[in-house]
Amino acid sequence: MEQTYYKRKIYLEDKPRAEAREEILAAQQLPSETEYISATEALGRATAEPIFARVSMPHYHASAMDGIAVVAESTYQAHEQNPLQLKKGSQFCYVDTGNAIPSPFNAVIMIEHVDVIDDETIEIIEPATPWQHIRPIGEDIVQEEMLFPQGHVLRPADLGVLLAAQQTVIPIVKKPVVTIIPTGNELVEADSELASGNIIEFNGTVFANFIKEWGGEPKLHTIVKDEPEKIKEALLAASETSDIIVINAGSSAGRKDFTVHIIGEIGTVFTHGVAARPGKPVILGKINGKIVVGVPGYPVSAYLALEWFVRPLVCKYLGIPEPKRQTVTVKLGRRIVSSMGAEDFVRMNIGYVNGQFVANPLTRAAGVTMSYVRADGLLVVPPNIIGYEQGDFAEVELLRPLEEVRNSIVFSGSHDLTIDLLSSQLKRVHTDRKIVSSHVGSMAGIMAIRKGEAHVAGIHLLDPSTKQYNVSYVNKILAGQDVVLYPFLKRKQGWILPKGNPLEIETVADLVRGKANFVNRQKGAGTRILFDLLLSEEGLSSEDIIGYEREMFSHLAVAAEVKGDRYGAGLGIYPAAKAMDLDFIPVADEEYDLLMTRSFYESDNGRQLVELIQSPAFKEQVEKIGGYQVVENAEPKRLSEEVK
Amino acid sequence: MEQTYYKRKIYLEDKPRAEAREEILAAQQLPSETEYISATEALGRATAEPIFARVSMPHYHASAMDGIAVVAESTYQAHEQNPLQLKKGSQFCYVDTGNAIPSPFNAVIMIEHVDVIDDETIEIIEPATPWQHIRPIGEDIVQEEMLFPQGHVLRPADLGVLLAAQQTVIPIVKKPVVTIIPTGNELVEADSELASGNIIEFNGTVFANFIKEWGGEPKLHTIVKDEPEKIKEALLAASETSDIIVINAGSSAGRKDFTVHIIGEIGTVFTHGVAARPGKPVILGKINGKIVVGVPGYPVSAYLALEWFVRPLVCKYLGIPEPKRQTVTVKLGRRIVSSMGAEDFVRMNIGYVNGQFVANPLTRAAGVTMSYVRADGLLVVPPNIIGYEQGDFAEVELLRPLEEVRNSIVFSGSHDLTIDLLSSQLKRVHTDRKIVSSHVGSMAGIMAIRKGEAHVAGIHLLDPSTKQYNVSYVNKILAGQDVVLYPFLKRKQGWILPKGNPLEIETVADLVRGKANFVNRQKGAGTRILFDLLLSEEGLSSEDIIGYEREMFSHLAVAAEVKGDRYGAGLGIYPAAKAMDLDFIPVADEEYDLLMTRSFYESDNGRQLVELIQSPAFKEQVEKIGGYQVVENAEPKRLSEEVK
Repeated sequence: MEQTYYKRKIYLEDKPRAEAREEILAAQQLPSETEYISATEALGRATAEPIFARVSMPHYHASAMDGIAVVAESTYQAHEQNPLQLKKGSQFCYVDTGNAIPSPFNAVIMIEHVDVIDDETIEIIEPATPWQHIRPIGEDIVQEEMLFPQGHVLRPADLGVLLAAQQTVIPIVKKPVVTIIPTGNELVEADSELASGNIIEFNGTVFANFIKEWGGEPKLHTIVKDEPEKIKEALLAASETSDIIVINAGSSAGRKDFTVHIIGEIGTVFTHGVAARPGKPVILGKINGKIVVGVPGYPVSAYLALEWFVRPLVCKYLGIPEPKRQTVTVKLGRRIVSSMGAEDFVRMNIGYVNGQFVANPLTRAAGVTMSYVRADGLLVVPPNIIGYEQGDFAEVELLRPLEEVRNSIVFSGSHDLTIDLLSSQLKRVHTDRKIVSSHVGSMAGIMAIRKGEAHVAGIHLLDPSTKQYNVSYVNKILAGQDVVLYPFLKRKQGWILPKGNPLEIETVADLVRGKANFVNRQKGAGTRILFDLLLSEEGLSSEDIIGYEREMFSHLAVAAEVKGDRYGAGLGIYPAAKAMDLDFIPVADEEYDLLMTRSFYESDNGRQLVELIQSPAFKEQVEKIGGYQVVENAEPKRLSEEVK
Repeated sequence: MEQTYYKRKIYLEDKPRAEAREEILAAQQLPSETEYISATEALGRATAEPIFARVSMPHYHASAMDGIAVVAESTYQAHEQNPLQLKKGSQFCYVDTGNAIPSPFNAVIMIEHVDVIDDETIEIIEPATPWQHIRPIGEDIVQEEMLFPQGHVLRPADLGVLLAAQQTVIPIVKKPVVTIIPTGNELVEADSELASGNIIEFNGTVFANFIKEWGGEPKLHTIVKDEPEKIKEALLAASETSDIIVINAGSSAGRKDFTVHIIGEIGTVFTHGVAARPGKPVILGKINGKIVVGVPGYPVSAYLALEWFVRPLVCKYLGIPEPKRQTVTVKLGRRIVSSMGAEDFVRMNIGYVNGQFVANPLTRAAGVTMSYVRADGLLVVPPNIIGYEQGDFAEVELLRPLEEVRNSIVFSGSHDLTIDLLSSQLKRVHTDRKIVSSHVGSMAGIMAIRKGEAHVAGIHLLDPSTKQYNVSYVNKILAGQDVVLYPFLKRKQGWILPKGNPLEIETVADLVRGKANFVNRQKGAGTRILFDLLLSEEGLSSEDIIGYEREMFSHLAVAAEVKGDRYGAGLGIYPAAKAMDLDFIPVADEEYDLLMTRSFYESDNGRQLVELIQSPAFKEQVEKIGGYQVVENAEPKRLSEEVK
């Protein structure tokens, strides 16, 4: 490792995002190039010039009805008491909708109002007014009228108008070429055999597809090693062939983060660091007249920085306004702390519960891609405020359609693998339904129901005094609230152990004896409460357990940890051990119930969910996994009178 | 023409749209086909199966910082008063963000908190806690967790997650093939030399692009003649190679509309006619197990019918929910009448004026494509109500992004060609600004300002008594309102005549003498008021003028009419005559002013508009057209005290 970089301290700026953005937009090389393409291929493309009609539509006086064309003035005598006969050819002709009106005719009478006397003669009993049922020339489009200004993004019906006006080949703004350069010695392609320390390069594909969506033409460069000369070479080459350059990563201030120096050497650096989180360590510069954006390596920071700086460059090149996301006003389920002087972009889960949108922050770690993928919205905390209190209302930018958010079932509480199965099955039957789940543990699930932040919570909480599951907790915490405790599963909890159980663990005492590296669950998780009960029954304390403080948020995460450690051990459900090909020693049979608000239980969504759970097909699928038994013909558990 | 079809009366049904839709969805042939494609190519595609992670991310314990890895327990003694030295290799190792933590280390100390003593030794003054600054295995993605259910439409960041989880080739729902069959003897390709009666086939391209947007794979058939055998052949062939068939048109009940009989003959007809306008004459049936949708010929009817019936088939095939448009609550500027028992889809213009969204219906003629293209939204009037009163509030589905609607300058009043130029110039400078104009005439423009439905109105109204333009009308109609009358152009009005002026027209009396076919403007248009004044000055009446009742809504439309008629004549502005290569005999120099609400005049939009008008570049462009003079250094005209 190159120690020489150690001493070089780089201090990142905290430049306001808007200022940094204006600087690069002002420095962007324009005008854009124009290309001529067939109108039939122009969906989603931006016009480069105003486009005018070459012909009118209709381009002739056209009949708007099936009927006969007549000279209106010659029909003025027609009356119920005075039917008028007309001769074909000289006095009328048959026309269909869309036919040209031959001279000298100037009106159309609907076929329904015509009596056919013979092949040559018809009779009418009502006069026609001039120009009736005739679509005059240019009724729809008038020759020479402006159809679209420049910078118009063409939609399906727009293409029809272009063809109708005989604009078959049209001037379109060329897609700006955006070269994406992934850098890093640790990066490997997604289909590689993975070694410890390898990181799969996937940001480049994400960038390329964002740029495609925005209307640019991405070019994904191969992975470049963390060597200044190679990076310099790639940047210089890209500046010859691209309109915009994106380099990822090396934009921070670590010992290998020399990208900013390279850009400074072969071009100009405008900005290094903006007052926004995550995404702060961004580099904005220019090489050979082309704007270069250096985005941070952590995925969420990277996607935000791309949106802040690359999207406006693409849109300006295309001459179109930047899209804005739909927003919704939400009630905040938790306090949100933000740093003064910097914008904060907080990923949020949003649920529609009890007639209002309630939102909770997801993890703010910039490295957790799934938090971006699972987010329903982004809360942008402005630089001049230090956050929001729980219960405050705030405006959130939506990352999913509002309708989808409104239809989602918000699932909280304990994690169980069957919830994914339930979600997938529900979506199969009702494509517009979705279960959005957060794994927070049983206790937090009950709290989410109490605060009106979730529709359903999965809970499995053993009461040490009564040896009963769930009921006493619900009675105590939800006194005065109208909820339903619906029995869902009986499932096996047990030790999750490396294959072959090398430490021969069967009891909690064996963990201590074998000095196993235990992997625990977070506070409030049912599994942790079970573990603490096992400990106290054996007269042991948390101090006796190596790894007691190592907290995971799901059964699978526990199993994944055990998988990597010959001396590991965890407590969890059977299918998690099975999924990772680990050993499993049963410890307890527990009751995993679904706690629901009554309003949800009685809603369409609730009814559909219960129907699905009780369906033979679902039961069969669940029980095939092993370690599960779906409760048959379940009835809600009896709660105390205070909980209705 | 085939008289035989005359007697065959077909009565269309009025089936509720939802019922017709459910029928075809139930009859649709499923399951869909699955194909396996590279995750990097899967943007916008729907997953065919739930997708689970093949590896965790990280797949090893990774450093979250640049720094050193240590055994946490060995650092517990470190303190400011008791610095602890550690030896490289056995007691610590350097790690960068993302590096694997080698065994037996279990914590990372940030490089900023490390004092380098020499190449082999460092010193720390603070202990580390176990697992600090370490991203545990599966922090982001846990092996075997469900990443996406089936029916998930993949977004850019989703593709990153797939690669990170080593799901590089994924099961995707095949795009349903939708064959589009255009039929009609009158149809020609867009690049044809047009003859009277020819209609350019453009619906097929519009359908294809709608289907593309919805996720289907359109196949556009060549044009099929209106011959039962040929149509039958095309339908049968399509039923072998497609998942869905669209046929256009022949779905109505005219003498050439035999499509319904053909489908009945070779398949099943479920529906002929739905209780919705426009778009009523639709055919829904099935041939060889494939749903066939016969859509009407008029463009707007066709696009609506396609959305009602083809979109749900495509979405159901893909297993995704149908998209819903964002809606906005608007105040209705006009009364809207609807038929009882049928839904009405009314195209609307929406403007954001004085802090509220105000909407007005566009033409309801199903043949006017531009009304769909120009619409900002769709008002759906349910079957059980007969419409809305002016001033009612209603929910409108948006056809353009809300932000774009909110930023638009709503222009009303008289049509002038320079307004298009202004719109295009404004958009060039401010890509998110747009002028949305409706050509309603000067008087209607003043009324639009009075009712708060427009920001600006172009007016040119000559007061016969004072011989002054505009001021007296504004004073009278807008008493008590705060408006600005801004002088914009002086322009030439005159006779628009066929090349060579065959009837030698110079005065209004010449129209009568030469028996010209006059083309008039609509009531309230400034040009019509001028014409009426010319008539009365000559002692003539409207009865003396052939075509007085033939009303066009723009100068270009008048010119287009004159263009097609050797004995035609119209009154209008010079550039309209020039655009159509017609003769022009000047009659009057008139003042075309911009009437604005004061709040608009003083807004950003207003300021930018006036700046643009006064820019030398704009003046030059306008005056280059000919017949115009932009008013230099204009100041608002003086209005009466009552109009502030």
